[in-house]
Amino acid sequence: MTDTVLSSATKEVVIGFDRPFVIIGERINPTGRKLLAAEMKEGDYSRVKSDTLAQIAAGAQMLDVNAGIPLADEPRILAEAIQLVQSLTDAPLSIDSSIVAALQAGLEVYKGKALVNSVTGEEDRLETVLPLVKKHGAAVVAISNDETGISEDPDVRFEVAKKIVQRAQDYGISPSDVVVDPLVMPVGAINDAGRQVLRLIRRLREELKVNTTCGASNFSFGLPNRHGMNASFLSMAIGAGMTSAITNPLHEPEMAAVLGANTVMGVDPNCTEWIRKYREPAAEGEEGRRGGRRRRRNA
Amino acid sequence: MTDTVLSSATKEVVIGFDRPFVIIGERINPTGRKLLAAEMKEGDYSRVKSDTLAQIAAGAQMLDVNAGIPLADEPRILAEAIQLVQSLTDAPLSIDSSIVAALQAGLEVYKGKALVNSVTGEEDRLETVLPLVKKHGAAVVAISNDETGISEDPDVRFEVAKKIVQRAQDYGISPSDVVVDPLVMPVGAINDAGRQVLRLIRRLREELKVNTTCGASNFSFGLPNRHGMNASFLSMAIGAGMTSAITNPLHEPEMAAVLGANTVMGVDPNCTEWIRKYREPAAEGEEGRRGGRRRRRNA
Repeated sequence: MTDTVLSSATKEVVIGFDRPFVIIGERINPTGRKLLAAEMKEGDYSRVKSDTLAQIAAGAQMLDVNAGIPLADEPRILAEAIQLVQSLTDAPLSIDSSIVAALQAGLEVYKGKALVNSVTGEEDRLETVLPLVKKHGAAVVAISNDETGISEDPDVRFEVAKKIVQRAQDYGISPSDVVVDPLVMPVGAINDAGRQVLRLIRRLREELKVNTTCGASNFSFGLPNRHGMNASFLSMAIGAGMTSAITNPLHEPEMAAVLGANTVMGVDPNCTEWIRKYREPAAEGEEGRRGGRRRRRNA
Repeated sequence: MTDTVLSSATKEVVIGFDRPFVIIGERINPTGRKLLAAEMKEGDYSRVKSDTLAQIAAGAQMLDVNAGIPLADEPRILAEAIQLVQSLTDAPLSIDSSIVAALQAGLEVYKGKALVNSVTGEEDRLETVLPLVKKHGAAVVAISNDETGISEDPDVRFEVAKKIVQRAQDYGISPSDVVVDPLVMPVGAINDAGRQVLRLIRRLREELKVNTTCGASNFSFGLPNRHGMNASFLSMAIGAGMTSAITNPLHEPEMAAVLGANTVMGVDPNCTEWIRKYREPAAEGEEGRRGGRRRRRNA
């Protein structure tokens, strides 16, 4: 039973064993989104705003915020984006950057306990990111690669994760505040990627007893029907013990897979969430019956 | 590595660890299908024929054949149905009845090595069904309940399965010819049904080292969006080690979940089956491009 508690000024979200899976919305990220990148660089956060509202409406419990724009003032932009997002939603945030100064700027304006995304097993990352995480009382995503790159051997990735957890403890950060990303590889390139990562997720949960997260959609890279493949992968990763994912909550097949997996795992008491989402409007009263299949207004 | 080899006169299908999941089509079953029951009783097998062809076209590797019609001559009807189905497809069959004389009649006309569905842990069933399975060199589905009913405790169900496997060995039937049905309960009634059965599937595979099957759709009984829930459940059951299911291959969400799970488990080399099923027609040549999104003729 490991709980990672994240918070905004007014709301807590817990990533944990035997709890509903936590979806961290991935959309606020200019990587590969030219228009968003150009707008954020100019101080136009209208799309950040709409992405915030849409992801929360779609069921994300947390949001990842990234401002990685080439040749831009990333620390300032990230801090501004975080302040805007926190003014729009009480969902806790993941502060996402590969630049330590940007993580620092984000943490300084953040209200609550953030998830810092991320630290790797590389020495220089460990030595700069972990003190920052400790100073701000945050939690951190630990990516299981190091100076030697990403090993295809899940047991090597396990050892890297273990090293990060131990080093975090040296800095006074509890293992429950380290959320390990086992690194999801594309199955179209590495045929054994699924089996590898399921095995690693199971070991991280049973042996290292940490929470886990991943960029789930990477699994289906290059394949047709990516949503279908992501759905199977997410359900199976949850079955193996994964407790959160950084993914796109606007994709219905993936969200259905997560809700279904929650029910299979016994963390949707009386199937309440599943029934709330999928019951027929006709069963809800006269209006629904007369109007046929309508979208529910408060869904 | 446990392989259960089933066959028709000309084709083998293997249910096994580290192999593609085997779908046993469930449609040829008059239970709850009044029209089919009435037709079969009158010797009209036209619907049995169309169900056979449709299920094979949809990707079933085996078919279950059941002729359980009240006040009908079940042994004769089952034998006739089996002969018809075997004249239409080379897929191996599961011979499904609770009446021993019907199983016997089916086995006597069956060409190849059938899967007998089923034996339970009840003494009278063990003593009548197992000798029949041995005599015909068949394999058997072992349902993990006994005289005391179906236990909600997965460890009790494990012990029942173990007893059946041992008793089968006493009759000279190899454990690799016993396919255990752990019994899937509806999660709408038993909140812990998913976790229970995943744990049981894992134990059956790792400790008892047997293949498994189940009536997957029972899981979603009473819930909305049953296909979505079945899809999550099937993916997760495959992740836990389940190797076959008796289900409806005409339901696309479930079939996508199974194909996706095969890919995640590394048993779809180069994602060949996934790509074959889901690639865009446009990628296939001029015709597809001109015609837009068309169904492929040979899909």
